[in-house]
Amino acid sequence: LNPKFPGTIVGTTDSRQAHIIRGISSVDHVTLIRVQGSGMVGMAGISQRIFGALATGKVNIILITQGSSEHSVCLAVSPKDAAKAKKLLETELKHDLEIHRVADIIVEDDLSIIAVVGENMRQTPGIAGKVFQALGRSRINISAIAQGSSELNISAVIRRVDRHKALRVIHDAFFYGPRKTAHIYIIGAGLIGSQLIRDIYQKQPWLLKERHLDLRICGIANSRTMLLRHEGIPADNWQDLLRNTGQKSDLQQLFHYVKENQSPFTVIVDTTASHQPVEWYPHFLGQGIAVVTPNKIANTGPADLFMRLHELAIANDTRFLYETTAGAGLPFVQAVRDRVASGDPIQRLEGVFSGTLSYLFNTYDGSMPFSKLVQSARDQGFTEPDPRDDLNGLDAARKLLLLARIAGSRAEIDDVQVENLVPEKLRKPDNISRVLEKLADYDADFERIRSNAEKKKARLRYLAVMDKNHLSVKLTAVKSDHPAWDLKGSENLLAVTTDAYTDPLVIKGSGAGPVVTANGVLNDILKVID
Amino acid sequence: LNPKFPGTIVGTTDSRQAHIIRGISSVDHVTLIRVQGSGMVGMAGISQRIFGALATGKVNIILITQGSSEHSVCLAVSPKDAAKAKKLLETELKHDLEIHRVADIIVEDDLSIIAVVGENMRQTPGIAGKVFQALGRSRINISAIAQGSSELNISAVIRRVDRHKALRVIHDAFFYGPRKTAHIYIIGAGLIGSQLIRDIYQKQPWLLKERHLDLRICGIANSRTMLLRHEGIPADNWQDLLRNTGQKSDLQQLFHYVKENQSPFTVIVDTTASHQPVEWYPHFLGQGIAVVTPNKIANTGPADLFMRLHELAIANDTRFLYETTAGAGLPFVQAVRDRVASGDPIQRLEGVFSGTLSYLFNTYDGSMPFSKLVQSARDQGFTEPDPRDDLNGLDAARKLLLLARIAGSRAEIDDVQVENLVPEKLRKPDNISRVLEKLADYDADFERIRSNAEKKKARLRYLAVMDKNHLSVKLTAVKSDHPAWDLKGSENLLAVTTDAYTDPLVIKGSGAGPVVTANGVLNDILKVID
Repeated sequence: LNPKFPGTIVGTTDSRQAHIIRGISSVDHVTLIRVQGSGMVGMAGISQRIFGALATGKVNIILITQGSSEHSVCLAVSPKDAAKAKKLLETELKHDLEIHRVADIIVEDDLSIIAVVGENMRQTPGIAGKVFQALGRSRINISAIAQGSSELNISAVIRRVDRHKALRVIHDAFFYGPRKTAHIYIIGAGLIGSQLIRDIYQKQPWLLKERHLDLRICGIANSRTMLLRHEGIPADNWQDLLRNTGQKSDLQQLFHYVKENQSPFTVIVDTTASHQPVEWYPHFLGQGIAVVTPNKIANTGPADLFMRLHELAIANDTRFLYETTAGAGLPFVQAVRDRVASGDPIQRLEGVFSGTLSYLFNTYDGSMPFSKLVQSARDQGFTEPDPRDDLNGLDAARKLLLLARIAGSRAEIDDVQVENLVPEKLRKPDNISRVLEKLADYDADFERIRSNAEKKKARLRYLAVMDKNHLSVKLTAVKSDHPAWDLKGSENLLAVTTDAYTDPLVIKGSGAGPVVTANGVLNDILKVID
Repeated sequence: LNPKFPGTIVGTTDSRQAHIIRGISSVDHVTLIRVQGSGMVGMAGISQRIFGALATGKVNIILITQGSSEHSVCLAVSPKDAAKAKKLLETELKHDLEIHRVADIIVEDDLSIIAVVGENMRQTPGIAGKVFQALGRSRINISAIAQGSSELNISAVIRRVDRHKALRVIHDAFFYGPRKTAHIYIIGAGLIGSQLIRDIYQKQPWLLKERHLDLRICGIANSRTMLLRHEGIPADNWQDLLRNTGQKSDLQQLFHYVKENQSPFTVIVDTTASHQPVEWYPHFLGQGIAVVTPNKIANTGPADLFMRLHELAIANDTRFLYETTAGAGLPFVQAVRDRVASGDPIQRLEGVFSGTLSYLFNTYDGSMPFSKLVQSARDQGFTEPDPRDDLNGLDAARKLLLLARIAGSRAEIDDVQVENLVPEKLRKPDNISRVLEKLADYDADFERIRSNAEKKKARLRYLAVMDKNHLSVKLTAVKSDHPAWDLKGSENLLAVTTDAYTDPLVIKGSGAGPVVTANGVLNDILKVID
């Protein structure tokens, strides 16, 4: 197969805007002087007096701007001229200040000017939009703007401390044709985190060539150390760098670093299963920084938090994406979201969301006692270290809860009716081998349920169901017309019944493991940038 | 279920930016005067002389802008003052013009100023980005910009002819909190078009309330007449309006109307199955206008056209979306695209893409001869008027082709190996009843194939397969481990095998009909705006 992606730009179309822009220039340090007052409106001659006063002192004016219906004239001068300029203006406008025709002469220092210079830019709509969107999305405040000539120059006055960031983001916006750059910070470098880092490094050249997407990993943090490099962390030895040169992990410091280096597409990826990063989601989203995560904690904690995170993402024009919190890379979240988004009300959600429970009941045919099957699954690494963490149904319940919330439910985890497959007497903390041994006492119970189902030509599945407002996860006997009937291996399944899909829309496939999870996370990252 | 969508803004967050903006003002008619020349750089006193000259003539200056490293000063004045201003400047700068220190005094008329006025806007990054993005995405050229005061005023000088459009798009960008407005033009008002129009009108209130998306239908065209209303077509009687007050349909006129009224989210929806609208896709996309369509013609015509449309969409920062060209509303296109997009190479695509052929073989169990089954399906309206248009496999071949192209193939339709189920002798134009009668001569052949499959515990499916570079659609006997084994009714199916999904990712469900197709089109429209 030719690996070209539809949308790959061939030929010259991509450099159209790059040709229009000739360069980005900057004036490293300027002072802004604003003469303001409502009495100045329509006052012919005030400009002459302002500029006349400054000319007598040979003050060179770098930038001038005065908007319509504006009560002020704004000038940028060299810092060395600032005090003199202010004095000259105070002298010239003494009377106007006394009678409050001019209210104030304000001096602001520590500013820079960034100018985008080009040709025929006025004939190309959207250049100003691109410049100011890049600055705005990077949270760079703009003190003054001027654009006026035919041979275009858009000048923006910004805080001096932001000048490098501003140069970088404007450069990124124009000088790579349609290329977009994502600056990615990964929290957690365990199974999923490491796989994701490998995937990003491996797919970087292809993504750059075929999709014009430049994915840079700018931060990696584990629970001990973190490595922050806004210019990008080299692919070959990130583990060594993290271990040997990383600073002590500190999410607050991480947040400030990310904010200082914010670009239009900055993405935080939380690959942990812990609470600490979740507490920082509101800060990141509130700053317009995207959050992508396979961590279910935010989505299955209080419904209010879940709502609040979405509100913050919308209000700050960024994304909160978590496709991999249910079904790993399978598009479960997207499917539910798309149905709801288009106003196609969901009547029923059904699914098998635990790969382990899927495997156990897809395999359980009576030829091996249930407890032995669990033991064998554990031996193959298909279960949690303590298989009761699978058998208790909580993981499936959480996934159902988060999908239900996307479907419009505001339920809490306690509202989900959960059938715990761990017999009551085996739920206390105990040695796992002993638990599995004792589980054999219940093999006859499991077998009775199984053979009863078989007699009715049904199969057992650990099924999650949202029916109206009712949420449940439990062992269910399904017949051959049920979408879960022919599940295989550890497949996950989602069946969505809506007004438009009276026969359900079904998605199934591998729903667990670091490979598909990392791939799903990467897909979410690409959705931030796309 | 509480129908609230995650991300619904509750409380006050949504109006944050609306509070910052106090208003939008405009100066209906201004003239821009630009004094320019490379000799002016760093020439202290030039501003004084320019403004002094204008002050002697009592010329009121509405807007001033001079950027850094710029060789010009740009002034907006009232048109009545323009001639006088030019004369005064020519007199004052006579010598500078002679020695080419000043190159030119240029006057541009027929301009307007749009000003966004607010408070503390300088503390809120992104305001300028929002203003200029709205203008840029609406293809409004900007002649000059000024922003300078603390009580902010961003002024943009634009062509006078664009002033209403500019006021509208800036208003839309700020005054509805996070609300976004889509301006939708629908070509084709047949089964799918009418269903889509009904859906949009029905879901409008919900989308506005819960998702802050304002969907306005601004144009409807059928093959005879078209109705163009940039302010929105009323829901209740569009059919009457289209019939009685619509103008003669003309895609060129439609294009010009859409362009004149372009907003940041203008969407063309082609719900026809004809060639004419497709010829206009490049024009729309080239103008930054999104194209959404269930029409397969563009995707299954020359591969070059397919590529070119994607290139145009990317180069013009807009969308070309066609989820419903395969599997109707099922996310087949998205699933393939997501796999490829994340650099997860597709090893194999398999599917059942014809609802009619799915129905025929899911139902065909030998109890009724094949020809009778076709007749009965036709009687129930499950086939094309001429069932040979289903049986020839071309529709399935086209869908396979377009999915294969998304997966990276550059094949043409002739590269697909198609098994035509219409016996060779029945392919000529003929009376349909007679064809169906003659089809009975082949019932034994079909039955032999079926019973052979049954003997091998297999079922017949009309399967589309992409395996490496090879594309084929043909009758295939599948066993119980195949994802198509348990298809029911007229379900469509897609199974994607990739590096990450060694067991395929499977999507199935209802894949035809105006309801799910219109719903899928609506979903694409929402993706343009989201």
